[in-house]
Amino acid sequence: MERTAGRVVAFGEAMVRLTPPGHERLERTTRLDVTVGGAELNTAVTLRCLGVPTAWVSRLPDSPLGRLIDRGARAAGIDTAAVQWVPEGEGRAGVYFLEEGVDPRPSAVTYDRADSAMARLTPGAFDWPALLAGAAALHVSGITPAVSDGCRVETFAAVRAANAAGVPVSFDLNYRSKLWSEAAARACFTELVPLVDILFAGRGTLRTFFGLDGPHEEVLRLARERLGVAVAVLSRKRAKASRAIRLSSVALGPSGEVAATPWRDVEVVDRLGGGDAFAGGFLAGYVANPADLPRALALAAAAQALKHTMPGDFLAATRAEIEAATTAEEGGVLQR
Amino acid sequence: MERTAGRVVAFGEAMVRLTPPGHERLERTTRLDVTVGGAELNTAVTLRCLGVPTAWVSRLPDSPLGRLIDRGARAAGIDTAAVQWVPEGEGRAGVYFLEEGVDPRPSAVTYDRADSAMARLTPGAFDWPALLAGAAALHVSGITPAVSDGCRVETFAAVRAANAAGVPVSFDLNYRSKLWSEAAARACFTELVPLVDILFAGRGTLRTFFGLDGPHEEVLRLARERLGVAVAVLSRKRAKASRAIRLSSVALGPSGEVAATPWRDVEVVDRLGGGDAFAGGFLAGYVANPADLPRALALAAAAQALKHTMPGDFLAATRAEIEAATTAEEGGVLQR
Amino acid sequence: MERTAGRVVAFGEAMVRLTPPGHERLERTTRLDVTVGGAELNTAVTLRCLGVPTAWVSRLPDSPLGRLIDRGARAAGIDTAAVQWVPEGEGRAGVYFLEEGVDPRPSAVTYDRADSAMARLTPGAFDWPALLAGAAALHVSGITPAVSDGCRVETFAAVRAANAAGVPVSFDLNYRSKLWSEAAARACFTELVPLVDILFAGRGTLRTFFGLDGPHEEVLRLARERLGVAVAVLSRKRAKASRAIRLSSVALGPSGEVAATPWRDVEVVDRLGGGDAFAGGFLAGYVANPADLPRALALAAAAQALKHTMPGDFLAATRAEIEAATTAEEGGVLQR
Amino acid sequence: MERTAGRVVAFGEAMVRLTPPGHERLERTTRLDVTVGGAELNTAVTLRCLGVPTAWVSRLPDSPLGRLIDRGARAAGIDTAAVQWVPEGEGRAGVYFLEEGVDPRPSAVTYDRADSAMARLTPGAFDWPALLAGAAALHVSGITPAVSDGCRVETFAAVRAANAAGVPVSFDLNYRSKLWSEAAARACFTELVPLVDILFAGRGTLRTFFGLDGPHEEVLRLARERLGVAVAVLSRKRAKASRAIRLSSVALGPSGEVAATPWRDVEVVDRLGGGDAFAGGFLAGYVANPADLPRALALAAAAQALKHTMPGDFLAATRAEIEAATTAEEGGVLQR
Amino acid sequence: MERTAGRVVAFGEAMVRLTPPGHERLERTTRLDVTVGGAELNTAVTLRCLGVPTAWVSRLPDSPLGRLIDRGARAAGIDTAAVQWVPEGEGRAGVYFLEEGVDPRPSAVTYDRADSAMARLTPGAFDWPALLAGAAALHVSGITPAVSDGCRVETFAAVRAANAAGVPVSFDLNYRSKLWSEAAARACFTELVPLVDILFAGRGTLRTFFGLDGPHEEVLRLARERLGVAVAVLSRKRAKASRAIRLSSVALGPSGEVAATPWRDVEVVDRLGGGDAFAGGFLAGYVANPADLPRALALAAAAQALKHTMPGDFLAATRAEIEAATTAEEGGVLQR
Amino acid sequence: MERTAGRVVAFGEAMVRLTPPGHERLERTTRLDVTVGGAELNTAVTLRCLGVPTAWVSRLPDSPLGRLIDRGARAAGIDTAAVQWVPEGEGRAGVYFLEEGVDPRPSAVTYDRADSAMARLTPGAFDWPALLAGAAALHVSGITPAVSDGCRVETFAAVRAANAAGVPVSFDLNYRSKLWSEAAARACFTELVPLVDILFAGRGTLRTFFGLDGPHEEVLRLARERLGVAVAVLSRKRAKASRAIRLSSVALGPSGEVAATPWRDVEVVDRLGGGDAFAGGFLAGYVANPADLPRALALAAAAQALKHTMPGDFLAATRAEIEAATTAEEGGVLQR
Repeated sequence: MERTAGRVVAFGEAMVRLTPPGHERLERTTRLDVTVGGAELNTAVTLRCLGVPTAWVSRLPDSPLGRLIDRGARAAGIDTAAVQWVPEGEGRAGVYFLEEGVDPRPSAVTYDRADSAMARLTPGAFDWPALLAGAAALHVSGITPAVSDGCRVETFAAVRAANAAGVPVSFDLNYRSKLWSEAAARACFTELVPLVDILFAGRGTLRTFFGLDGPHEEVLRLARERLGVAVAVLSRKRAKASRAIRLSSVALGPSGEVAATPWRDVEVVDRLGGGDAFAGGFLAGYVANPADLPRALALAAAAQALKHTMPGDFLAATRAEIEAATTAEEGGVLQR
Repeated sequence: MERTAGRVVAFGEAMVRLTPPGHERLERTTRLDVTVGGAELNTAVTLRCLGVPTAWVSRLPDSPLGRLIDRGARAAGIDTAAVQWVPEGEGRAGVYFLEEGVDPRPSAVTYDRADSAMARLTPGAFDWPALLAGAAALHVSGITPAVSDGCRVETFAAVRAANAAGVPVSFDLNYRSKLWSEAAARACFTELVPLVDILFAGRGTLRTFFGLDGPHEEVLRLARERLGVAVAVLSRKRAKASRAIRLSSVALGPSGEVAATPWRDVEVVDRLGGGDAFAGGFLAGYVANPADLPRALALAAAAQALKHTMPGDFLAATRAEIEAATTAEEGGVLQR
Repeated sequence: MERTAGRVVAFGEAMVRLTPPGHERLERTTRLDVTVGGAELNTAVTLRCLGVPTAWVSRLPDSPLGRLIDRGARAAGIDTAAVQWVPEGEGRAGVYFLEEGVDPRPSAVTYDRADSAMARLTPGAFDWPALLAGAAALHVSGITPAVSDGCRVETFAAVRAANAAGVPVSFDLNYRSKLWSEAAARACFTELVPLVDILFAGRGTLRTFFGLDGPHEEVLRLARERLGVAVAVLSRKRAKASRAIRLSSVALGPSGEVAATPWRDVEVVDRLGGGDAFAGGFLAGYVANPADLPRALALAAAAQALKHTMPGDFLAATRAEIEAATTAEEGGVLQR
Repeated sequence: MERTAGRVVAFGEAMVRLTPPGHERLERTTRLDVTVGGAELNTAVTLRCLGVPTAWVSRLPDSPLGRLIDRGARAAGIDTAAVQWVPEGEGRAGVYFLEEGVDPRPSAVTYDRADSAMARLTPGAFDWPALLAGAAALHVSGITPAVSDGCRVETFAAVRAANAAGVPVSFDLNYRSKLWSEAAARACFTELVPLVDILFAGRGTLRTFFGLDGPHEEVLRLARERLGVAVAVLSRKRAKASRAIRLSSVALGPSGEVAATPWRDVEVVDRLGGGDAFAGGFLAGYVANPADLPRALALAAAAQALKHTMPGDFLAATRAEIEAATTAEEGGVLQR
Repeated sequence: MERTAGRVVAFGEAMVRLTPPGHERLERTTRLDVTVGGAELNTAVTLRCLGVPTAWVSRLPDSPLGRLIDRGARAAGIDTAAVQWVPEGEGRAGVYFLEEGVDPRPSAVTYDRADSAMARLTPGAFDWPALLAGAAALHVSGITPAVSDGCRVETFAAVRAANAAGVPVSFDLNYRSKLWSEAAARACFTELVPLVDILFAGRGTLRTFFGLDGPHEEVLRLARERLGVAVAVLSRKRAKASRAIRLSSVALGPSGEVAATPWRDVEVVDRLGGGDAFAGGFLAGYVANPADLPRALALAAAAQALKHTMPGDFLAATRAEIEAATTAEEGGVLQR
Repeated sequence: MERTAGRVVAFGEAMVRLTPPGHERLERTTRLDVTVGGAELNTAVTLRCLGVPTAWVSRLPDSPLGRLIDRGARAAGIDTAAVQWVPEGEGRAGVYFLEEGVDPRPSAVTYDRADSAMARLTPGAFDWPALLAGAAALHVSGITPAVSDGCRVETFAAVRAANAAGVPVSFDLNYRSKLWSEAAARACFTELVPLVDILFAGRGTLRTFFGLDGPHEEVLRLARERLGVAVAVLSRKRAKASRAIRLSSVALGPSGEVAATPWRDVEVVDRLGGGDAFAGGFLAGYVANPADLPRALALAAAAQALKHTMPGDFLAATRAEIEAATTAEEGGVLQR
């Protein structure tokens, strides 16, 4: 891996995403659209859109699907040199199917990721001190420790190495009920979150796993006090319809300062990856200037909104486009 | 035909549906999406989604398009053993083109069904007492008698055989102005509806053909009293936009009990087949327990709503998904 | 060119339009949909939908893309006999890429039209008196004079020839900032608009280029008085969302009479070409009966609304469909 | 219809062609590719590629499919002003399905053209003397008189009008067994062919309908002597495989001169329309210079070969490309 | 399961097949075509094309992909009532990816079938005496016992039940090296083949697993003598190119009679499923008349050839089409 | 740019390639497939497939199409850090259209690359000593100096810097008649080739530009002696049909040793990029071991053959697949 100073290191699994076009049911589709996605990789892609060098640490099988994932990450500008390649028979490429519903039919994500190369990770697989040398941040989500016991142990190894190296740890508190029980997740999160510097979380997960409740700012304040994180960030979504949502966000900084973005209308082409883009936008602002919380949150909200306007898990946008979206109300038609 | 006890028998024509993708005008499209549809078959498919065995009685040409229709029905789990196969030169497969408009452009259905194998049916073609033995219900719509004189005569034969065998007759009062005049339809409906047990109808058709008017429940009560049906069911639609509608429904049961579902928002991927799915959902509830009107109506409303969220005339959903949709307000993203 | 009496002559450039399907970003698309578009040609196509014979005057390279543009125009019923064909090496076919965004991502039009066959036009290329003999109107937009110096000079030649022949000149005051500066445009428009009979303009361009401001009718009145046009027409758009807009329009006639269409909801499949269809609808009404302003404006509004409901720059609709849309509120499903 | 001097007038039916992509069986396809085809129209399109103005005389329903056929013809440069438009309910648009097989599976053409607007033609529908005034040739195939009794009578009217006006009649002796019996066809052809000037025919049809047999040149000589045609042209095909064929041709001119093209290899993207393009190429050469038989035959062979290399019934090629193909052995890669 | 007398029962796994279109590499495709395949199911589909009722015995997860496989089988006319449905979390749906290469790039089949519902079968899952009552034959391939230990044990249970019931056992000696070792396969086949009545095998597998060698008829004779099968059938393939092959076959009957089909050219649209269709064609002839070996072999060869001319694992053809293909040399264009 | 030791540096322009699917003519296509290509970049991609690190030196506009090209290169594993980004208005992204013909229709490449960011390169734009430090080779083709005067001057700068640094220069003697005259090319090549170490050329170009003629080995020997190159490599193609070719090659090494690969059959999915892949395969072998000429030539032939079996300009293959193709005759079906 290229050791670019100031790079953000993301650790997690990515999968091949297969989506029936045209809102068709998976059970009767004759075609599938193929893209790549994974929470931490998605976040890294947004960071890269904003010009932050990013390295993705993961494991992939040396198979066509493994290479497909690697190609997708590289096309988006991610440094994949730290990916470990596993012989084809020793771990699958994770796959997930996305059925895109509209109200009242839910979109459905069906994972087929058991026995993946990532899940079969043996603790100690990665040399974290080397990987994190000079890094601007380490980013992990709550999915990575859920993938397997090995991944959980390795997540702690990564986070502790970051703590030791003084590299800020960013953590998105995602919970995937298909991967582990609430109890197992709570045990892990309870140990992990205090090692974290920047916490992204929804109100529901903060309540479920840490019993934090109250108005938004209060919840963030509790998170900072009780969980010991420096920065706590919360994104809110209200659905007007499955293809038209409203988003807003609040962040609480190290010195207790609060930033917020107002509710804005967002039209939805693709439901997935919005939260990951939000984290990526925030981190890009944060690593540039930790003191400018409103700026980080504005980038987060813009990246999240833009992500929803395009297909796939990944954001594709220039820094200029994201900047423009920090203020834009509606899209219009741009001549260029 | 497999004589599964408790099966519902549906009688009507199905056609090949050809749809230009992407809201393109038919006159300039370079591609057509191919599916299968037909009012009674659509209803049968919903019944099958809900676990009710269904047999479809119809006629098809022994041609590629005839086989395409049969394949579509069988893929959806319908028993097509009672379909009569007609030599290729002695009747076409009906075709219809669907142009999907958005406001203010109407969607347009162009039928090309003249001289179809079904239209050329000679009365007496089917052995109704045998086909209906042990059936839970017979389902027909107002389209079947409109297809041709032969079909009209055969519809009466089917309905009378059901009456004789004590099999409940379900009738969806559809009117297709392209197939016959209002006068001809009125003459037929006036004779047919009194032979029916369960009547699905809109307010407009009840007014046009039977002069029934008034508030919804009153109209249903009039239908029951004057037309002699045991159960009368009415579905209401309000368009917020061509891709966003509101639906509700009311039913009046044999002992005068009323059930209703509240207005709910539904986003529309495909406009067709909703009413047919509604009838299918209701019938599935009804044949399971004729006394539980609210349950039947809830399944009807859920099936109808779900149908609108996917392409094609046919619903594709599991019983569990339909059950979930009886209460769901919005879809969200389901992890599984 | 066939010299059909009563034909409308449109002068301008048309291009190949390339659009990534499914709202994908251009930078990562693997497919492009190919259509044809150009402001004046788009207007001509709407005129032809309404039964008005139209001739398009332009230049195209004798290349596959040049022929593609010609085929598109001819398929839509346009007389392209007056198009000048340029050897393949002496001028490109203009191309433009359209990225279809949804809020808050703007749709983006990227032109690649430099050095086109049209841009390389040498003044005097067309015999305007001959082309305009017996014509019902000449239509040009503000884009044509912006394409190149040659095109600007030729635009004046065309307009003056029309003036001389007593052929009404219709002008759509479009401004393309990528093609020329505001100052250059103002210089041109200031000289050109007084030669015009029917002016289509938005409030913004009237303010920018002529300093006209005030309520809508007042602005139109100022346009007529100060700019010397006989008829001034203004279309207004309000976006509820990128795929749901509201449209209305106002026109001021030669004797000071005012016509207006109320705000109506329009769902959007494709954002482009709406204004061009508006001009086409108005002109079709105007050339049939200049005195019936409300009729012309109703056709304009209907054509504009319908255009938005289908993909591509061109309207495809019959006269009957446009007539129906002058009153329709919502589309529904039409059986035929 | 524009009465361009030197134009070729083609009379016949055209249909919407629906083809499952990827060699899929029609009975299980989910998509259809839409193009337009019809023997005489196909021939007209090749004439137009070679710069010969062409007018197509036919009948179409005023329906989306009717307009689709008209658009296809116009896009290819054909003058469709003489087409008669029939109200939507008084005649269908013919449709045909093409299944593209590879050996040993035959390609299958399934016609659905009964009751078409063309089939319902009433004799006397067209003013042939006016339509043929100044025409360079009239082109008909053996399909037109087979479509219906009305079409047969009208074909004779057209041919006799051409005879009277001194317009050469070109006739392609196609036989469609689905449309009429061999006996009916023989009765018609026996009366029609003596009125013809240029006869295109295969050896099989000459044997079947006229009992002509022997070596190729001998058969042509017999055709000329016994059937009284001025020019007789014969195309031969040998299949190496379904996607690789060999073609050659022979022609016998008015003064007994013989021209021939050698066997050449042709790779096949689409099997249909080759013979129609052959006739178009020959006619283009013939109307330019009836004395140069080798030239006409070379254009015929080139147009036929090129047609097979592209999808659809229609050739799309410039005159230069067809000229180049009169000599080319293999395609290679052309830089331009 | 419907207990149709004379039905053939097929036992094995089927999977979702995902194929990049256009010969694209899997690692960079953006789309996948979705079909269904599995050796025994493929054979059953051919039997059904030839009018033989067939039941498929297998296990599927109650998931979208499980239902997709079931729909595919039912669309093809297969009775799937005996399929056992497994809760979504207790077994996956097998998936396989097909990369279609052309020479010199091999086509590549990548299986992802570990932990499938079928693989997790517990011996004793099926009531074979009931399933086989009245059956005309039981068909299994060498893949079924390779899927898992449970499947191997169940295969023996099925075969022994057939032996006990006097139901002929048909066995296709397929070897999948990815599923088990040669030694494990040999142990199984050595025990299994003597229980078999009709053996389909290639020369390579007969040599590898049983040491049989020599000319074709001799090998078949040895198979019959040493392995104790009543009928032995062998199919041979020679590739001229990846899309053009030659096929022939030989069979040895119970009384030592030999039948053979000559080499024939076949063009290839899809490489898979040919051998399965061959077995299906043979069995259809055999169960109709075991004494007519040439007839059975002719149907086998025709079904195999036709299968290669269409996409997907499944044959789609009518009995008439297969009959026609028993003699056809080349396809041509069929009018109908 | 990452300065990986042993990397190969490629210098040249890449373009967006737009291809109508299904062999459709460009002038009537409604869709275009989008890929990326450019001679030197194509070669770099093959090197990367074989595990050789590669850097691509070029210029791209900061526009969607510029980013599309960069994404394509990065997805294929190329280091694009040395690409210079030009503001959107100061240079286009080159585009080329590919029409895929079959015999006798030629495939046609239509370039639209004038005024590209690369063409507008100002000499001195790149710091070649830095870019080439530690490089294993510099690769350029005859296209790069043809793009513009600036590119020609910069090509010499690059080559001379390589000479100075002792980095072997690889040159593919491509001639594009659309970019410059034969005379201009000869002047350039005459000066450039003597600075080259490894020369790839066809017999035609060696004859045209250097007057070298004779048997293949003799021509190579003359090239080495008269042009002063260390290694001369020649690839030969014979077309059996447009989709079936035969390839062979010969190379002459520094000490006069000769290597050759025999004629082999290759089926063609895509005609472009084969020669570039050939150069890439050879270079990969050469930089690993310059002494093993047969090995380098075998990799060249295998890469070239594989390239033809897949769509697009780029090879996608693993080292293992290329190794396997050095010997494979036909593809077959690979289970994995």
